[in-house]
Amino acid sequence: MEPKETAALVERLRAGDVRALARAITLVENEADEAAALLSACFPHTGGSLRVGITGSPGAGKSTLVDRLAGRWRADGRTVGVIAVDPSSPFTGGALLGDRIRFQDRQGDAGFYARSMATRGSLGGLAQATADVALLIEASGKDALLIETVGVGQDEVEIARLADVTLVVLAPGMGDDVQSLKAGVMEIADIYVVNKADRDGADRVEREIRAMQSLAQNSGPAGGAGAPWTPPAVRTVATTGEGVDRLAETIARMQAWMSEENRLAKRRARHWQRRLDSMLRTELMRCARRHGVAEDELARHAARIAASEEDPWSVASALAKKVLEEK
Amino acid sequence: MEPKETAALVERLRAGDVRALARAITLVENEADEAAALLSACFPHTGGSLRVGITGSPGAGKSTLVDRLAGRWRADGRTVGVIAVDPSSPFTGGALLGDRIRFQDRQGDAGFYARSMATRGSLGGLAQATADVALLIEASGKDALLIETVGVGQDEVEIARLADVTLVVLAPGMGDDVQSLKAGVMEIADIYVVNKADRDGADRVEREIRAMQSLAQNSGPAGGAGAPWTPPAVRTVATTGEGVDRLAETIARMQAWMSEENRLAKRRARHWQRRLDSMLRTELMRCARRHGVAEDELARHAARIAASEEDPWSVASALAKKVLEEK
Repeated sequence: MEPKETAALVERLRAGDVRALARAITLVENEADEAAALLSACFPHTGGSLRVGITGSPGAGKSTLVDRLAGRWRADGRTVGVIAVDPSSPFTGGALLGDRIRFQDRQGDAGFYARSMATRGSLGGLAQATADVALLIEASGKDALLIETVGVGQDEVEIARLADVTLVVLAPGMGDDVQSLKAGVMEIADIYVVNKADRDGADRVEREIRAMQSLAQNSGPAGGAGAPWTPPAVRTVATTGEGVDRLAETIARMQAWMSEENRLAKRRARHWQRRLDSMLRTELMRCARRHGVAEDELARHAARIAASEEDPWSVASALAKKVLEEK
Repeated sequence: MEPKETAALVERLRAGDVRALARAITLVENEADEAAALLSACFPHTGGSLRVGITGSPGAGKSTLVDRLAGRWRADGRTVGVIAVDPSSPFTGGALLGDRIRFQDRQGDAGFYARSMATRGSLGGLAQATADVALLIEASGKDALLIETVGVGQDEVEIARLADVTLVVLAPGMGDDVQSLKAGVMEIADIYVVNKADRDGADRVEREIRAMQSLAQNSGPAGGAGAPWTPPAVRTVATTGEGVDRLAETIARMQAWMSEENRLAKRRARHWQRRLDSMLRTELMRCARRHGVAEDELARHAARIAASEEDPWSVASALAKKVLEEK
């Protein structure tokens, strides 16, 4: 793609052209040559959206909750983007319904865009790909972005770190007792959502969250100077919409708190520091490929290593030296 | 640690000293400075073990099957190592029982070693950490290595690629119909295990595997010249041990097939090529840190990016240039 075409694509994307957005996402997902130029051109038009991460155990009702929140914000006149991330799909075949089926009743709504992601590219992790897609959707002019993850693993923790506000969704009787949620979740939760709150056991779930908090004596992930943020627990029944207004208010309250004392800027800077580390790694590898370490050279070494004729650590070190000296 | 100490640790590890092995694993998991030297010193003493990967949906009975296979091989006089990988543990709190509880009846058996892994380090993924630990256990003189993964996501697919032979474990009535297993699992399965075969539905699971195979017209992951390998389905009841002998024979048959026509060497070379790519990336980043791109410089840029004052793609590219020119 010519630089002129990239610029035109970004312009169409920014004007709200859904097909341009979809095309840009595909280019970025496929790690096309123009991906960096596209992202770079979109970057100045980002930073204004609220990014909300939603994670928690499977079956807690995250998807329904995302749909409800999106509906609530659309009713307020805010534009909404949704990214549904499902790292487990190579095996499970996608627990998520396709975007078209799931968000069927929003078809034709120009203020709404949803996209599923499952694959991770070769150059970065799923978290990085999700961050890139989030940036494109943000540049397309969405006021709020909901980033939903299906699973509960390390990938999800990393994806949650992209968000300004992270919801951890729990439900009674899921067999995922709060006590079994370890440090990983304590670290990332800004707001706990006790969904399916009309079921028995909602009290117990909330009590356990409180107990865990007092045990950890944790004043929230973005704590520090000023009034600390203690992650509140909000009860919802996503299927009926009960509690969703309160949840939206709690998110707005967190957003207001984040805007004080530079907290949002600090959190986003932490995100970008991790991102930059990973981007630099990728960039160095690209340079390595340009300067002497072609795929077939790696293949030759790999065969010798597999035959125990070479030691991989010595090879990696020698190749790195070669790249750094040649250029 | 002095180079002399590293050499002494490797010597003790090779002599079968369990504490030396555990210490080496901890050093590698913590990405200690001496990790590369340790792995490099162990490398010449690896390559002789059979590496068996075990994956599949949670609840299919993988752990019990691993215990049975380990017992079967120990009874034959073969030494056995086990790595149990649980990427989901930051949230679930570890579905795996601790090594000591799970393998209690093998305590004091010098021919057996088991280790759980959950964390991924900062410099590489969980798959890389697992590969490193596998190498250390192999160097400690184990004839066979069982690498068990708990989940069913992308991490597991990558870990399965470390193995010479990969078992995909299914069970009737798990709600994980074979049809829902997508390309990811077709790619990595060398042997299907239909566990809990005494339950209703085992026939159906096996029929579905066959149907999927004929649909894919896939002659196995390592196919090519010579007799192709069609992944067989073996029925087991891990809790009673039924079928485990047959499974061990099937693994031996696959191992024999892999030893023909250079198949094992080719598969291991593919593994090392991916590995080398990732190691080179890490090595380049290490050089970057030595030459001008300190953590605080990344932090400064990150803050400017978060404030939309800089563009991350331009920063990454400029930093890469700086590293490559300075050294």
